[in-house]
Amino acid sequence: MTPVPVALGPRADPLLAEAITRGGGRCAPIDEARALVWDAGPDGFPDSLPESVRWVQLYSAGVEDWFAAGVFSRHPEVEWTSAAGAFAATVAEHALTLLLAGVRALPDQSAATTWRQQEFFGRVGTLRGSRVGILGAGGIGRALVPMLTAVGAEVVAVNRSGAPVPGAALTLPASRTDELWDRVDHVVVAAPATADTRHLVGAEQLRRLGPRSWVVNVARGSLVDTDALVAALREGRIGGAGLDVTDPEPLPDGHPLWTLPNAIVTPHCSNPPAVRPPAFADHVAANVRRFVAGEELLARVDPVAGY
Amino acid sequence: MTPVPVALGPRADPLLAEAITRGGGRCAPIDEARALVWDAGPDGFPDSLPESVRWVQLYSAGVEDWFAAGVFSRHPEVEWTSAAGAFAATVAEHALTLLLAGVRALPDQSAATTWRQQEFFGRVGTLRGSRVGILGAGGIGRALVPMLTAVGAEVVAVNRSGAPVPGAALTLPASRTDELWDRVDHVVVAAPATADTRHLVGAEQLRRLGPRSWVVNVARGSLVDTDALVAALREGRIGGAGLDVTDPEPLPDGHPLWTLPNAIVTPHCSNPPAVRPPAFADHVAANVRRFVAGEELLARVDPVAGY
Repeated sequence: MTPVPVALGPRADPLLAEAITRGGGRCAPIDEARALVWDAGPDGFPDSLPESVRWVQLYSAGVEDWFAAGVFSRHPEVEWTSAAGAFAATVAEHALTLLLAGVRALPDQSAATTWRQQEFFGRVGTLRGSRVGILGAGGIGRALVPMLTAVGAEVVAVNRSGAPVPGAALTLPASRTDELWDRVDHVVVAAPATADTRHLVGAEQLRRLGPRSWVVNVARGSLVDTDALVAALREGRIGGAGLDVTDPEPLPDGHPLWTLPNAIVTPHCSNPPAVRPPAFADHVAANVRRFVAGEELLARVDPVAGY
Repeated sequence: MTPVPVALGPRADPLLAEAITRGGGRCAPIDEARALVWDAGPDGFPDSLPESVRWVQLYSAGVEDWFAAGVFSRHPEVEWTSAAGAFAATVAEHALTLLLAGVRALPDQSAATTWRQQEFFGRVGTLRGSRVGILGAGGIGRALVPMLTAVGAEVVAVNRSGAPVPGAALTLPASRTDELWDRVDHVVVAAPATADTRHLVGAEQLRRLGPRSWVVNVARGSLVDTDALVAALREGRIGGAGLDVTDPEPLPDGHPLWTLPNAIVTPHCSNPPAVRPPAFADHVAANVRRFVAGEELLARVDPVAGY
């Protein structure tokens, strides 16, 4: 099969050039290309595209700026894809790190300056044999399932439809989220922030977890009721919380979450800029492969729905 | 199939009783039993066993005490199995925790009391796309492979024979360990302590790793040259070290490893007493199933070799 010509702009990033080749394309000038991978924002995007270009891959997961700049409406004949989902595995890895670190009392062990083996014998737990609830089984949640099962945990997933999530022992529809809390040892929050998900983890839900339970949030701060969480942590009613996102965010100096011994806060860095390029390159390679094969592309932008 | 009668002593631990049933046995008095699960040391072990008993499952991984007490030679007609390997997955989970915590700068993030996002954007890495060397692919190393591949890392394993380790991208025989250091981003030490493995990770090996490389040791302290490691950590020549075992051990107060910012020390608690019972119960269930099926048992004691 002749490789499909794909243009790369505004720069000839070598990682993306390799990804285009890996997906079954070849880098080509824009006026020969059937697709364009655009590694920057809307400023400087070509005013007109050759007719041969049928698909444009954008760099970011959110495309609000592109709507605001009116780019999509200027090129109604082109299919657009974003980077949505490209970073799901990176964020899932961060969630796994927070959960393991919590269950194994890692921060306190790391801070110790003397051999406190007897104390940590009583505090180090395991995910093996535990049940972990994942609230929101989109890209991040789905990427997390095989990581958790690999360490011997069982997953109870919650998604909108209740359609079984691959690898989960049980999938509940969002309408039955209430049944989750008595069934799981730990909870990972990975759902989008909407009016329905605000304070999804509140006082009532925290009461139904146990004194060794960890709550991890890698989604948005608003999904957890911070005051209820702080109260549960202070009283030791749950094991702890690992938070990459907070409400308010950034977390202000002096906030109790900074100093509670059973809270781990990371400053919204589950997907830091330095680790994005290889993940985006994998996404580009996967989409080029789909484009070449005539399959549906990942992360298509819907110009009508606005995302 | 009629369940095989298995005795349980000296106590009727409910977790082990359930494991016997799960494996296809049933709990029975010793004089009816074909096997015995013994959940204690050699003191109090019956002086004589009924002829019907063909197999005894012991609680600990090491059986030196049993040799010293002369129990094996008193019962030459019986097959003995230890708990060796039962805790491999627990220790592997700890190795994964140390590696993820290191690569994602978790201890420093957890210790912060202000929102240092820009700093951690530059410090949080990922195991995805990295290559991890596992030195010693026995039970722990083999259990670690699927955990690492689940987070998107590639494994290079080293074992005695070089026989391919399932899930590893490459397996090297111990005689070619020297080829490992230039090929991997991180190293996990999981080999037994022998004369050959003393200071397996020394100054020369550390020099061949990079400034983002983490070294994790969950085996024995003697496998790593502590002075060479401290020098490499001080000079920032490697990313860091996660150590559940140290040399000397316990690590004395005031030792530099306690306070070096890129060292995480956990006090030999990868497999704490509290998490052992369920792992041992799984081992018992697996061995009862094998006994019932007439298959080779796991962790057979070799009375001649002495382990």
